[in-house]
Order: sequence, then structure tokens, then C-alpha cells
Amino acid sequence: MITSSANPKVKQVALWQAKGKERRRAGVFLTEGFKMFEEAPEERLREVYLTSEALEKVSETPGMKEKLMRAGYEEVTPEVFRKMSDTQTPQGILCVVERPEYELERLLTVPRPLLLVVEGLQDPGNLGAIVRTGEGAGVTGIIMSVGTVDIFHPKTIRATMGSIYRVPFVWAEDLTKVMGMLREKGIHSFAAHLEGKRYYDSFSFREGTAFLIGNEGAGLGRELARRADDYLKIPMEGKVESLNAAIAASLLMYEAHRQRNGSSDTLN
Amino acid sequence: MITSSANPKVKQVALWQAKGKERRRAGVFLTEGFKMFEEAPEERLREVYLTSEALEKVSETPGMKEKLMRAGYEEVTPEVFRKMSDTQTPQGILCVVERPEYELERLLTVPRPLLLVVEGLQDPGNLGAIVRTGEGAGVTGIIMSVGTVDIFHPKTIRATMGSIYRVPFVWAEDLTKVMGMLREKGIHSFAAHLEGKRYYDSFSFREGTAFLIGNEGAGLGRELARRADDYLKIPMEGKVESLNAAIAASLLMYEAHRQRNGSSDTLN
Repeated sequence: MITSSANPKVKQVALWQAKGKERRRAGVFLTEGFKMFEEAPEERLREVYLTSEALEKVSETPGMKEKLMRAGYEEVTPEVFRKMSDTQTPQGILCVVERPEYELERLLTVPRPLLLVVEGLQDPGNLGAIVRTGEGAGVTGIIMSVGTVDIFHPKTIRATMGSIYRVPFVWAEDLTKVMGMLREKGIHSFAAHLEGKRYYDSFSFREGTAFLIGNEGAGLGRELARRADDYLKIPMEGKVESLNAAIAASLLMYEAHRQRNGSSDTLN
Repeated sequence: MITSSANPKVKQVALWQAKGKERRRAGVFLTEGFKMFEEAPEERLREVYLTSEALEKVSETPGMKEKLMRAGYEEVTPEVFRKMSDTQTPQGILCVVERPEYELERLLTVPRPLLLVVEGLQDPGNLGAIVRTGEGAGVTGIIMSVGTVDIFHPKTIRATMGSIYRVPFVWAEDLTKVMGMLREKGIHSFAAHLEGKRYYDSFSFREGTAFLIGNEGAGLGRELARRADDYLKIPMEGKVESLNAAIAASLLMYEAHRQRNGSSDTLN
């Protein structure tokens, strides 16, 4: 049982919570809560910390107890846990997880890719919501500019609600090069853009598709936008000039899902 | 020019930023930034505070200068402005705006209402995004439980990107009573629900429609959910169990928009 916040492991975790650079150097990210423990890929679970209350709860849950035993764990006091936690009302369980590594080439060669190309998004909650909705809509991969907010930021992780474990993602030094690769593979790219003349639901996203998602305030950079195969627009009533980036992305992803899965036996 | 943070007006604004109760008592809310000043209804603009840099910028913008002159303003130093501001990188212009008052009865009697009934949503960013997307999708009104996060919270206001000025909203002490009123008016209510058997895009939202939106973690309360006319579901791939509340609401609102405006001359 760790009872002191001065314990080196506790200080290490607190440092990983605060500093993206330290997380990157160690090749890990942190997740909190029972759901995140439950869904963590076992082969990538490096350390688990929990309070005795959380330990009791895990021990009562079939399957979870065994997973915890195999992973190994350290019990900590509630006070110590608060030092390690990034949340205001911690659930008392925290995992140190090894980062996954995905390859761009593989993201581009799945059947009928449904990709997001994310440039410079800055809000961790938005990125997390995009990952979560992306899994829900059947996105096959996310390609991010290096200037995008850290996908392993505690707030991003939390907002993914577990999808961080399952949606493949990579970073690209140069997204304009990626655009060339998309074209070579026959993956059609779309940017939501003021110059778009047709509504998003008038395009077909059934074949290989990539949606370009830009920064919350500035939108897509010019260099990237001009490489898109098509501009599309989302209809907006009133005086609305744009939608939240995660919401715009979600409308596009779910339109692709609708077309690909024929969910709509519409009555209309 | 106000140069001291001890100035009573500065202290008053800082108090309004921090305390919902004080804002409510005064019948005001605060907005920041040029866009929020530009879109503020003139008849409800009570006070404007700005730095000399912001004043210069406003003075150079046709129409804005006149609006500012008519509203009246106080210049403050950048240091004082930081005390009044809720943002990390303030634009240097802040408005005190009188709260609008809408009537539930009127929200229910517009032609073909498209309503959101929001119960206990807790994240100000989510509520703000819902208001913003709501305007974009043509929502005619929002009805909130009294336990919903303050729509005048600075973070909510910011996330609405100006839609707070234009989308009508009311609070209801008892949402179950509202459900009875919806039924009387022939407004069909829908809840996204685990028990839903049909996908959301298989229902018609062309006539009077109300979407029920619940709390981020707990969803809709049982009392409210059982009063919904229909349960619907949003398809989800992978292991996703639910979507972010604002994103789920947005998918529903835009499906209604698609049906009502026939934006989709689909190629498929």
C-alpha cells in the first residue's frame, strides 16, 4: 500500500498527467475509471493503481478480478490517489497503458477506408469526442498533423470513453504528402468549406473516403484545403456561420455510416 | 477610463462571471469578444467594457462604432480587463446583456415546432454546442429542466458563438408536465434510448417534433423517458455504448433538418 505522495511511482504518474513530453518519452498514456480499466488491452496494461474501495469493487466483478491479478496492481490511499488523478471526482482506479503503434500504410489499405485527416485541432474534448464518434460511425483511421492537440491528453482520453483503445491513429509530419497518398490509393477527400456548393449529403461516401477537419477557430489551412478533391457544405439556418469542429465531423461521419450501412429505411 | 480593479463596476462584473446566482438576481449575462458584441441585440445591451486596443478596432469597423456610441461604453486598462474576463486570451471587449424572456406557450405554438427538451445536462460546453447547432439546424426552442447547467454560464455562452441571442429557451420546474403539453399540441416526442428498436433516420420529424436529451452520464431520467412517444436509436459500431450528448443531439437535429428541408438530392 502506497501511503505517501512522495513515493517515486506516485510522482512519476503525476508527472505523466501533467506533461505530454514525459508521457511521450515513456511511451505511455494514463486512463482512469472502471470502464477504462475494463476495456484496456491486457497486453498493453503496464501498471494499475487503485484505492481499497476500488479494489473491492473490481474484486466483485467477474472477469475484472482475474484481469487485475494478471496485470498486477498497487493499492494507494485515497489521498495519494487524488495526487495521481486528473479528475475532480476520481473513481479510484488508474492505468498506465503502453502506447499503440499504427502504420499509415495500413490505414490506407483497409477495404473502403473511412478516414479523418485532422489538422491543428486544439481542444482535447473535441478530439476525444471525434475519436468516440469515429468508432461509433465506423471510421477506420485518424491521421493527425503534429500540431494537433495531444491525443493522449487526459481530457482527450476521458472524452474518448474507451475508443482510444480501438480506433487506429497516426501522426503525419506533412499532411499535404498524405493527400498525395490518398489520391494514389483512390481515396476521395472532402473538406467542409465556405466555397462548397453542394450539401454534404449529396456526395457519395461509399467508397474510400477521407474527411478533412481543421482547427476550431481558423478552420483548414489553405495548403491542405486546396488539395481536397471536393468541397462540401453543411446547411445552416439563422446566423450560424460554422459548427463546432467535433459536431461537424460527426455529421459527416454519420452520413458516411448511413450510406454505407443503409440504416435508413426512411418512412419519408 | 477605469484603471483600478477595485472599481465597483469591475468588482460587479467579476462577481457576475463567477456566480450564477448574482447574474440571475441582476437579470443579466455576460458575453465577450467582437462577434458577441456585434451580434448582441441593441435593446438588451446594458453595459460595454473595452480596452483602448479593442476600442480602436471597433471604431474602424463600419456599423460597430455607431452601435458602441449608442450603447455607451467604459474604457478599461488591459490589467483591469483581465480581472473582468473569463477567458485566457481576452479580446478586450465585454458586454453586460439583459436576459431575454421567452414563454413556453409560444414555443409550443409556432408552426411545426422543432424542440429540444433537456434534462440535467451538466457540461456548459455541451449545452452551448447544442444551442449553436440548434440554431444551425432550425430548432425553434429549447426547454430545460431547472437542474440543467446554467445556460448563462460563461463557458456555455462562449460555446454558443452568438446563438444564445437567437434561440428561444425556457426552464420548466416539471418536465413531465411539459410532456403532457407537448402531447396536447400534437408535438411528437422522441428519446434516444437503449430500448429503441428503430434507427433515428427511420422516423419522420417533419411535423411537430421534440427530442429529449438527458444527462451526460446518467442519460434521461426514467420518469421522463417513459413519457416519450417513441424510442429511437443511433447506430453504433465497435464497442461504443453511447455518444457525447451534444453530438447525439446534433445528429437528431440535423436529421430533422434534412427531412424538413430536403437538402439531400442524394446521388446514392
